Amino acid sequence: MRLGVCYYPEHWPESMWEDDARRMKALGIEQVRIAEFAWSRMEPSPGEYDWGWLDRAVDVLGAAGLQVVMCTPTATPPKWLIDRHPDILPVGADGRPRTFGSRRHYDFSSPSYYVASERICSAVAERYGKHPAVAYWQTDNEFGCHNTVVSYSPAAVGRFREWLKARYKTIDALNRAWGTVFWSMEYRSFDEIDAPVATVTEAHPSHRLDYRRFASDEVARYNRMQVEIIRAHSPGRPVAHNFMQLFTEFDHYKVAADLDVATWDSYPLGALEEQWFAPELKAKWLRTGHPDFASFNHDVYRGMSKLPFWVMEQQPGPVNWAHWNPAPLPGMVRLWSWEAFAHGAGCVSYFRWRQAPFAQEQMHAGLNTPDNRLDIGGSEAAQVAEDIRAVLAAAEDANASIRSKVALVYDYEAKWLFEIHPQGADFHYPRFAFEYYSALRGLGLDVDVVPVDAPLDGYRLIVVPPLPVVPADFAERLTRSGAQVVLGPRTGSKTADLQIPASLPPGLLASVLPARVWRVESLRPNVTEPVRLAGSASLDDGVGRHWRDFIETGASDQDALEICARFADGHPAYVRSGAIHYFASLFDDALTTRLFAGIAREAGLSVTALGDGVRVSRRGGLTYVLNYGEQVHTLADVPDAAFVVGSREIQPQGVAVYR
Amino acid sequence: MRLGVCYYPEHWPESMWEDDARRMKALGIEQVRIAEFAWSRMEPSPGEYDWGWLDRAVDVLGAAGLQVVMCTPTATPPKWLIDRHPDILPVGADGRPRTFGSRRHYDFSSPSYYVASERICSAVAERYGKHPAVAYWQTDNEFGCHNTVVSYSPAAVGRFREWLKARYKTIDALNRAWGTVFWSMEYRSFDEIDAPVATVTEAHPSHRLDYRRFASDEVARYNRMQVEIIRAHSPGRPVAHNFMQLFTEFDHYKVAADLDVATWDSYPLGALEEQWFAPELKAKWLRTGHPDFASFNHDVYRGMSKLPFWVMEQQPGPVNWAHWNPAPLPGMVRLWSWEAFAHGAGCVSYFRWRQAPFAQEQMHAGLNTPDNRLDIGGSEAAQVAEDIRAVLAAAEDANASIRSKVALVYDYEAKWLFEIHPQGADFHYPRFAFEYYSALRGLGLDVDVVPVDAPLDGYRLIVVPPLPVVPADFAERLTRSGAQVVLGPRTGSKTADLQIPASLPPGLLASVLPARVWRVESLRPNVTEPVRLAGSASLDDGVGRHWRDFIETGASDQDALEICARFADGHPAYVRSGAIHYFASLFDDALTTRLFAGIAREAGLSVTALGDGVRVSRRGGLTYVLNYGEQVHTLADVPDAAFVVGSREIQPQGVAVYR
Amino acid sequence: MRLGVCYYPEHWPESMWEDDARRMKALGIEQVRIAEFAWSRMEPSPGEYDWGWLDRAVDVLGAAGLQVVMCTPTATPPKWLIDRHPDILPVGADGRPRTFGSRRHYDFSSPSYYVASERICSAVAERYGKHPAVAYWQTDNEFGCHNTVVSYSPAAVGRFREWLKARYKTIDALNRAWGTVFWSMEYRSFDEIDAPVATVTEAHPSHRLDYRRFASDEVARYNRMQVEIIRAHSPGRPVAHNFMQLFTEFDHYKVAADLDVATWDSYPLGALEEQWFAPELKAKWLRTGHPDFASFNHDVYRGMSKLPFWVMEQQPGPVNWAHWNPAPLPGMVRLWSWEAFAHGAGCVSYFRWRQAPFAQEQMHAGLNTPDNRLDIGGSEAAQVAEDIRAVLAAAEDANASIRSKVALVYDYEAKWLFEIHPQGADFHYPRFAFEYYSALRGLGLDVDVVPVDAPLDGYRLIVVPPLPVVPADFAERLTRSGAQVVLGPRTGSKTADLQIPASLPPGLLASVLPARVWRVESLRPNVTEPVRLAGSASLDDGVGRHWRDFIETGASDQDALEICARFADGHPAYVRSGAIHYFASLFDDALTTRLFAGIAREAGLSVTALGDGVRVSRRGGLTYVLNYGEQVHTLADVPDAAFVVGSREIQPQGVAVYR
Repeated sequence: MRLGVCYYPEHWPESMWEDDARRMKALGIEQVRIAEFAWSRMEPSPGEYDWGWLDRAVDVLGAAGLQVVMCTPTATPPKWLIDRHPDILPVGADGRPRTFGSRRHYDFSSPSYYVASERICSAVAERYGKHPAVAYWQTDNEFGCHNTVVSYSPAAVGRFREWLKARYKTIDALNRAWGTVFWSMEYRSFDEIDAPVATVTEAHPSHRLDYRRFASDEVARYNRMQVEIIRAHSPGRPVAHNFMQLFTEFDHYKVAADLDVATWDSYPLGALEEQWFAPELKAKWLRTGHPDFASFNHDVYRGMSKLPFWVMEQQPGPVNWAHWNPAPLPGMVRLWSWEAFAHGAGCVSYFRWRQAPFAQEQMHAGLNTPDNRLDIGGSEAAQVAEDIRAVLAAAEDANASIRSKVALVYDYEAKWLFEIHPQGADFHYPRFAFEYYSALRGLGLDVDVVPVDAPLDGYRLIVVPPLPVVPADFAERLTRSGAQVVLGPRTGSKTADLQIPASLPPGLLASVLPARVWRVESLRPNVTEPVRLAGSASLDDGVGRHWRDFIETGASDQDALEICARFADGHPAYVRSGAIHYFASLFDDALTTRLFAGIAREAGLSVTALGDGVRVSRRGGLTYVLNYGEQVHTLADVPDAAFVVGSREIQPQGVAVYR
Repeated sequence: MRLGVCYYPEHWPESMWEDDARRMKALGIEQVRIAEFAWSRMEPSPGEYDWGWLDRAVDVLGAAGLQVVMCTPTATPPKWLIDRHPDILPVGADGRPRTFGSRRHYDFSSPSYYVASERICSAVAERYGKHPAVAYWQTDNEFGCHNTVVSYSPAAVGRFREWLKARYKTIDALNRAWGTVFWSMEYRSFDEIDAPVATVTEAHPSHRLDYRRFASDEVARYNRMQVEIIRAHSPGRPVAHNFMQLFTEFDHYKVAADLDVATWDSYPLGALEEQWFAPELKAKWLRTGHPDFASFNHDVYRGMSKLPFWVMEQQPGPVNWAHWNPAPLPGMVRLWSWEAFAHGAGCVSYFRWRQAPFAQEQMHAGLNTPDNRLDIGGSEAAQVAEDIRAVLAAAEDANASIRSKVALVYDYEAKWLFEIHPQGADFHYPRFAFEYYSALRGLGLDVDVVPVDAPLDGYRLIVVPPLPVVPADFAERLTRSGAQVVLGPRTGSKTADLQIPASLPPGLLASVLPARVWRVESLRPNVTEPVRLAGSASLDDGVGRHWRDFIETGASDQDALEICARFADGHPAYVRSGAIHYFASLFDDALTTRLFAGIAREAGLSVTALGDGVRVSRRGGLTYVLNYGEQVHTLADVPDAAFVVGSREIQPQGVAVYR
Repeated sequence: MRLGVCYYPEHWPESMWEDDARRMKALGIEQVRIAEFAWSRMEPSPGEYDWGWLDRAVDVLGAAGLQVVMCTPTATPPKWLIDRHPDILPVGADGRPRTFGSRRHYDFSSPSYYVASERICSAVAERYGKHPAVAYWQTDNEFGCHNTVVSYSPAAVGRFREWLKARYKTIDALNRAWGTVFWSMEYRSFDEIDAPVATVTEAHPSHRLDYRRFASDEVARYNRMQVEIIRAHSPGRPVAHNFMQLFTEFDHYKVAADLDVATWDSYPLGALEEQWFAPELKAKWLRTGHPDFASFNHDVYRGMSKLPFWVMEQQPGPVNWAHWNPAPLPGMVRLWSWEAFAHGAGCVSYFRWRQAPFAQEQMHAGLNTPDNRLDIGGSEAAQVAEDIRAVLAAAEDANASIRSKVALVYDYEAKWLFEIHPQGADFHYPRFAFEYYSALRGLGLDVDVVPVDAPLDGYRLIVVPPLPVVPADFAERLTRSGAQVVLGPRTGSKTADLQIPASLPPGLLASVLPARVWRVESLRPNVTEPVRLAGSASLDDGVGRHWRDFIETGASDQDALEICARFADGHPAYVRSGAIHYFASLFDDALTTRLFAGIAREAGLSVTALGDGVRVSRRGGLTYVLNYGEQVHTLADVPDAAFVVGSREIQPQGVAVYR
């Protein structure tokens, strides 16, 4: 548990650096991330490096007792490089190169950029790899930001063909896997295959899914190149990347597999404004963010990080990039920080030390205002530093790695697949995964977010949001876990090639769920389908939304499959086969919560209905309670002496930690 | 009256074909459409044909007693052809070619594609033209689907110039007809004229309208080429094309003029979701479709078909292509089938025999599920086959061609003109035509939908939705018909060159309607104008929406023109001159229905206010009653013995046929 | 005070011209604008001029006693010119040239077009410069219409680099001014700089703002070229341009500086429909326009015109170009005309004499219908002519130039800056400026709209809508004026380079407003913040919307800064320092009006709460009262004898003028 900050010495007069470092340290900050956008200062002209300023900056920070997180500067190739190699620029779906003048203007498949990246990464890693102040590394910055994963350049198409060859070996195999016979889309060779873009009507979904898989793999390959260079020059220093919440165009698990630390950039207010939440929710949580959004991401990245995950960038005040940018309520910067630690963060690093008065992000707050006075976020960071001392004094293993009893399976391919092949226009995978997660958290449950190939043993409850493609061993692993399992609709509905399973969904799960999904329907937003639980007299138990699977239980398997709820027209809404529960629709939040509560109890878990603004986490012998709401939350049963931070009366935006 | 199905032998193992054919026949299916997307299987490489599989498929179907509808495969040119002739690809309004990878990726004006189409059509027609199992032909597939009529390629512009030369002869005539003097748009030669696209502000409306006319003519020319090739090789077999509901970018009448059978593809649920209907209506008719939508199209295509029209593709269950895709209620596939026959269909052919598990349409239901079990739609088709036997036994001439007493004039150019030149952003011609049609049908009237140049004699009521351009003889033909005539607003408001008539609207209709439309206004959606009928005390008779014509009755003609309704500000809302009625606005549905009822009675027609879910048709001595609603509909006055299908109690989604 | 009309002799048979001229004169029209779109008739082929028709037209008009406003025809270069010099076409943000076929299809930076324009302007000016009937000139037509100011052509980029060199002298200075160190956007030479378009995420805001300044300067330069040519050939004739309401892509002040007369084109109904007004307001003012919209523009253009401003085009009936185009209520054409005169117009010129039956604007009404009968607008124009005689008889100096007591500072750069750098998606500068203006007008105040560098002495109340960049001497000039000053939020928030001021906002105004805006937030549309006025017990005094500045009053300046209102969370909502008032948010209309009323009274101004449909102006000893509302408005206190036009009972859409 420690604090960090993001710092841009190149933005400020060198005369300010020493005082900045001193004040950071005084505030309780221990690590400083630098240089991720500094290529034009490192190498002002082709081949002419200028390390002097950076040497001095690192020295100043080190001298103040701060640990440096050094970055590769590849997110912002300078203009001279673009002018020399215009093929670096990624090509949009409109066929036009995206231009220089902001950031991330590069194509992961560009050979020129690969070489240039190798060169600058080697130069930085060689220069600072063994500097005593440099303790960590970050590769690039926010892969995927601004929709930069998928490019339609000739280079990308060329590498896609190679990728396809590696996957399918023969063109016949590809034609079969995709089903190109439909609409005479058959290919005679891999060289005939283009990017799936600008077609008359929707391009082939298997083609599109493979293009997305390919593009994702390109990110992993590019990151791996950087990691290997850093490790060669800077052995023993952990390597991180800062993922960005919901930039899901690439498989974060695959990139994280090459890292030591998975970190993410947490902007709860910007995320609320830009994501799927209804306008009323955007107003309700305007200055706090949604109580489950940051924690969902904490749990996502904890699950893929070898060392404790970090928040590499923590929102310190209003930001600049959402459509509207409100100010956090006082206390929220502290609350968000504690939420990260409560979920196992090793570090919370604020973005940024001081608000810059120029360029694109001049309206993005920092811990200090542009006139160099400590802002609210800065004061709250100082308070967090003090809190940390109390917590670490109370529990040395406060940050221990623990395993939750509940697992939620989260998958990037599912996002792409449903985006490509939604069947209902609002079938938004991250939203549905989040709603399941939020229902679990509202019941006071700690949740591990895990990939589909994660070990499942030891979990008592496994929740699987709609997961179209499941691995061959998934059924077996689910069963072996002994957990209660909830499967969302559409789970098992596709093969890896994006076809319908021969025996219909749930396909590979049929062995544990003897059902046959013989029909589906998607429902427009102004249509819901009432649900009646078994034994209930009325139809007001809740509703299904967005989707309905029509389930045939099968004569021979009749006994094996229990119908726990039905729609008004009699079709099953919720069936189970032993410990395997299947939801045929996406239920309203209240019904989802009610069903999860029952199943969790059956799994032997203790559940509590928390108010919608209160959240609880347990870790390392401590319990953390956070109050996102507008009311004081009182912990009646906790003895006064148990409190390490705060007290039994948790004010709005307040935090309590107790033994 | 017979059933058909669409079948794709190339999608399935040859081992399944015989069983498929047997089961089709057993189900009561008599004809099978094949091969419309099979070019890459017919000609896997340039000039290398592979007919073996198709020979065997046709033989298998024929051996089972099924009649084959053979298709030309031109809707899906294969990749090798596109790579050889990239100019085949149509060019979008953004100047970029649309690419390979879905379907309809061809430009009607491409000379390369014209030649390639001649070649493949000749090959198919030659091979199967005289095969005993081949009873019918279909050209291409769904012209106009995915907005593929208008292309902005150099080839299209070149042919457009020729088209203009043929129409205007001299550039001076064109300049005068268009009025290019406005804004210095004058041309010195036809070669100076480009496509009307990407202009700074709206391009010249006459230029745009002519480009649309040209593009429509290109479709007709292309289809005619195919028809001629087929007829040369396959004499005596009727040639069809499957039009798609509301793909109105080309003039369906002109294409149909070259065919023997006009067919269309009926997807009531997809159409409801994708068309203009308000969200509440989309929820109300979610799983039935709008009660007048399919029948409107039946009446459209019946009117342009030499032989009885067909439904070439009938929705058999949920589809995949709408924004949301609900499942039809049980009974609807049968109801839709009977609705088609009630409107004179010669065949209802379901799309498709079996749901494909791969590619773009894998979520489109068939009569059978992908695991080859009969789906609900299949069972209902079997029921329809049984019903047909009952009906044909009761009335040999059940499918007789009859003439209705009511004609609704429907025009494609009107759609284009109002799209180009709306004056009010929501002036949507097909919607208004449909609303007039729906009001008539809600009164229990059978309606012929006819082109503006159709013979009008014999009709008692002629309804003309907004028709900007009328032929020179239209006034005379209307008068001669002796019918009551209702003209919608904007009728006669433009010359064929898209100018305002010299004497103002109604232009060429002034001889029968002595009015002068001296001003118009369009009304935004949150503004309506109350209407008071003559003799009424209040202003709550209804409202005008969207549009108002300001009508001057003219001193000398005062006596000739009766003002039947006024707006609140006193301007006439509805005037008549003898049998010619003119509506100055688009009235709300209730007022439209009320006015139509009165005028129909004056025409000697009997009208009945049907519930909004019940529809009635009469044909060949039989009356068909369909229940789209949620309530049982009882036919109190019909004797039990009269029922051929069903009974006096018509359940929701039920059908009754009686003598 | 006189009337004019826009006339297109080239659209009509020459046989009509004499009668047209005679009827114009008889109607009371004194000046006629011609030829602004007639290039293809002046020069039908390259270098071949045809002046005959235009000579005759000018002669006919002159002979009838009409004064001609001759135009340069550069808004519509003919096709042959475009074909010879395709680089004339402007390039859109999508990188594609916009094409021939409408109007304004030229790039202000195209050297070819500059030369071609010089040539045609010289030809026209030489031919008609000294013709006795030609009394005025108009350059081009509606600069900026259809978003034609900004082009992304190579020519534009080349000239932009020159513009940057002139502004910054060295590339280092530019890098510092923009802060390109952020994201490695540093440039090594001006030649590396491209247009700020098609970047991966938002381009650099300073780069964008400079590109907009450059594009605006290109318009001024182009107009200046035309003005100089005209003055050389036609000395003594005033030169005008017709600005278009809210085409704010260029700085109208800069273009007007080169003109003698600033004129604008007033389309109250089209503007209402196309601008920011809520749907309910669009319905409420459907057939009148918003009561403050035309007058706002009158005051804008009066402020920048050396001679009395004109309305060059006055809407005479329904137009064609808005999404919906309702008809003005009877009386509105007269009311609008009088509103212009009440605000100091020298001429109101109707667009157009007669509705054209062809081309893009065939649905745009004229004073006469296409069949050449006088329309309502024509009759009302005749009435205005009669009114003018009464007014001029009553007060010879009716049109005297006067100075109001209230100034509203209006700025074009502010519009661009907030568009580029909004921080809240709906921060729409013209809307907020208009709302301030409207609140003042609703209090019965006459307002001068002035640029930020206008002399401010003599004003009693100066209202400054959000003005991010203020000149160095602004604080001093405000103070010196002795006026009460209201500053909107964000005033002083940026330097001229688009950076945050070193001491934070209000930056250069800190000397007169000792505050520190240490934080801001933008608020989504469904969030408002209650405001409590000092001394008020409740929170229902009103609300802040869109934006909040967080103001620190500063310990040492505590006494100097009075907190006049607070938000619910205690932050100041309205502070003042002596006569300088600062609003920290955009208040609702009622609260804005209430605050303005109090401040105006403090400034010694008399205010009256007018009904929302009544507006009053005073000029040259006369008071003009206009009734936009639905109720009769009675002027109880004015003696009967005082009325020059109308009476004490002002009907809806009525006008009264009294001494």
